[in-house]
Order: sequence, then structure tokens, then C-alpha cells
Amino acid sequence: MIRTTEFRLETKGHTDVRDITAELESAVRETGLAQGQVLAFVPGSTAGITTVEFEPGLVRDLEEFFETLLPEGRDYHHHETWGDDNGSSHVRAALVGPSILIPFNDRRLLLGTWQQVVFVDFDTRPRRRRVIVQVAGE
Amino acid sequence: MIRTTEFRLETKGHTDVRDITAELESAVRETGLAQGQVLAFVPGSTAGITTVEFEPGLVRDLEEFFETLLPEGRDYHHHETWGDDNGSSHVRAALVGPSILIPFNDRRLLLGTWQQVVFVDFDTRPRRRRVIVQVAGE
Amino acid sequence: MIRTTEFRLETKGHTDVRDITAELESAVRETGLAQGQVLAFVPGSTAGITTVEFEPGLVRDLEEFFETLLPEGRDYHHHETWGDDNGSSHVRAALVGPSILIPFNDRRLLLGTWQQVVFVDFDTRPRRRRVIVQVAGE
Repeated sequence: MIRTTEFRLETKGHTDVRDITAELESAVRETGLAQGQVLAFVPGSTAGITTVEFEPGLVRDLEEFFETLLPEGRDYHHHETWGDDNGSSHVRAALVGPSILIPFNDRRLLLGTWQQVVFVDFDTRPRRRRVIVQVAGE
Repeated sequence: MIRTTEFRLETKGHTDVRDITAELESAVRETGLAQGQVLAFVPGSTAGITTVEFEPGLVRDLEEFFETLLPEGRDYHHHETWGDDNGSSHVRAALVGPSILIPFNDRRLLLGTWQQVVFVDFDTRPRRRRVIVQVAGE
Repeated sequence: MIRTTEFRLETKGHTDVRDITAELESAVRETGLAQGQVLAFVPGSTAGITTVEFEPGLVRDLEEFFETLLPEGRDYHHHETWGDDNGSSHVRAALVGPSILIPFNDRRLLLGTWQQVVFVDFDTRPRRRRVIVQVAGE
């Protein structure tokens, strides 16, 4: 059985790291499935999804790491194409990837105790985002 | 239901970024499935698959980013093992990852408007590549 | 059909790269399924899973790359939160990602000849790890 849903969130951009674990747990619970996988996917090319221990120190570490690796203010060829200013966001997002697949069993996500699923908005402005959630299992 | 197919492409290597969205859409359409997931996987360790807004400026940004992060001409320990010259390609590929999983519904990939699935060949020479495509759904 | 299992491994930490291909092949074989996907997932936020040509030179290249990109000894904000010393491990793991999805057909993983699935322990000390393996197919 497969079920496709979605949820929305508003972000501040600039590597805004948001914990979306509860949304995925809720999507799994609503299917009534015992065992399977939940896919979270962002339909957009300036945000990524991964897992991390969600605490304020690491959120700052992630922000600083990406700003050092791919600074927002630098010139990117992408800016010449559309007049955009978010070349950094696109390259960061391509690196992290737009999705995550989490296994579940006995109706529970099989995450570590200090591991949360996070949506990271790399865009250079606040965004309203849609996240696709697909639960497959039995 | 699961269906496994594959397609081929010829690349120039050196971070050749190729849009493979149409091949995945076609694989989904051929199954007749309405809802599910399509997996694209490269059976090789010097290429990666991710999503990006596929336009010439960003393609150059990706090339320049990876060349700065992991330059092709540098010495890598991998070169001592086989006499190869593509240590950079292997490390870049391990970072991006060999696969992507895209949800579909109503027979359409749930990608963003400016989001394409790309195959990135990091090898240091032209390659003939095989991409495994697996569609699962109902 | 879906089957969830797990296996354990002991690592040395510090970007310890371990080949887990045989464990995944074995999990697929035990299901008797002919075609499908095997998911490997680490329930923890200081290790990652990807594919690479598993040979000693590349293992050193990966270690040196991550140590240059995110040095272990540097100050991370994460250290202020819990008094931990593994901020580098968390950021590296978020970048690589906690999982991999490998297609199989005719009971064989569709990996390249020189491509192995690797578990990379980024933590700053030896760890006993659990890896979740989920096989889905028909």
C-alpha cells in the first residue's frame, strides 16, 4: 500500500533548519501500516532534507559550514541566467539532496534517539514550502 | 508492482551534468502505475545523481564548485593503488551519492517546476554509462 | 513484501570506512525475493552510508577529505551544548546522509563491479553500531 500526502511550512531561508520528524511520524500513523518506509521529498531545487541531532549548536554549525563552503554573496553563473541571487542555495541543495527515506517498524520510525529529520531551506529569502510525504508498507 | 529497466547515455566526464528527467518520466509512464516511486541508480563509483535547476549557469557553478573542492589534478592515494587518475571523481561521487528516489502521483513525477533530475559524470574521461531505473507502485 | 532486519558492527570512529555489501547481499538472499530494493539506514547522527570503490587508497582519500573540510579538533557550537567533542562528526554525517537504497534483480544487487556499499563512522571514538536493513520487493 502507498499513500501520498503533503504538508506545508514557512521558512526564513538562509539555511533555516527545521525539524519535520513529527510530520513524518504523523503521516505513518495515519496510514495504519505496521512496517515500511516513509519518503520526504521537497519539490524545489533550493532546499534539502537530511537527518541531524536537532539542537541549536548544530543548527549554527550547519549554517556556518554552508556559508563558508558556498557563500551567499559570491558571484555565481546562475545569477547571470535569471538575475537571481541564490546560486549558493542551488549548489548547496544539490549537494544535500531533496529527499530522505526512513524505515519504520511496529508503526515507529527507526531513528536514533538523537536523530531528527530536518528540512533545510537554503534559499536567500523566506519561502512557503510544500513537502511531499509518501508512505509505503504493509 | 516493481519494474526494473535501464537506459544508456554517453558523457564527456569532468562533471558532465545531464538532465535525465525525461527518461524517468518515460519509465513511469510505461508501467501504467498511478502512484509510487521511481529510483534512478548508477552502477559505478565515479558518477552521482541528484536534482538541480538544469540551466547552463548552474551547470558551470557545479563544475567550478567540485573542481575547487576536490581538484582533478591533485594527488590522491587512489592513484597509487591502480595507477588511475580519477581519485577526485570517486570522492565527489561518494559525496553526492549514486541514486535518487522521486515520488509520483497521477502518473506524474512530483518535481518542482524548476527542478530536474541530473546524472553527473565526475570521471576524468568520456564514459558510456548505464542507469538502472526501478519503478514501484500501484 | 517487506522484511526488516538489522546487523551490528564495531568501528574505530574517525571516518572509519567499512564495506557492508556482503551484509546487504545476505539480507536480500534471505528474503527469497527476486526483484526490489534494499535500504540500509543508520539510526544515529554521526555516521553515514554511501557507495565507493572500497580500496585502501580511497579510504585514505575520504579520511583526508573530511578532515580538511570539517576538522575534528576545531571548535563547533555543538560542543557548547552538551560538552561533546564531535561537532565535526555530526556535520559530516548530515552531508553524506544516513541511508542508501540499492536496487536488486534476479536476486543480485545491481552494483557496479568496483562499487561497494560503505558505512562511514565519523564519530570521534570507537562505536558499536546497529544498521537497519529493509528489503522490499516481489
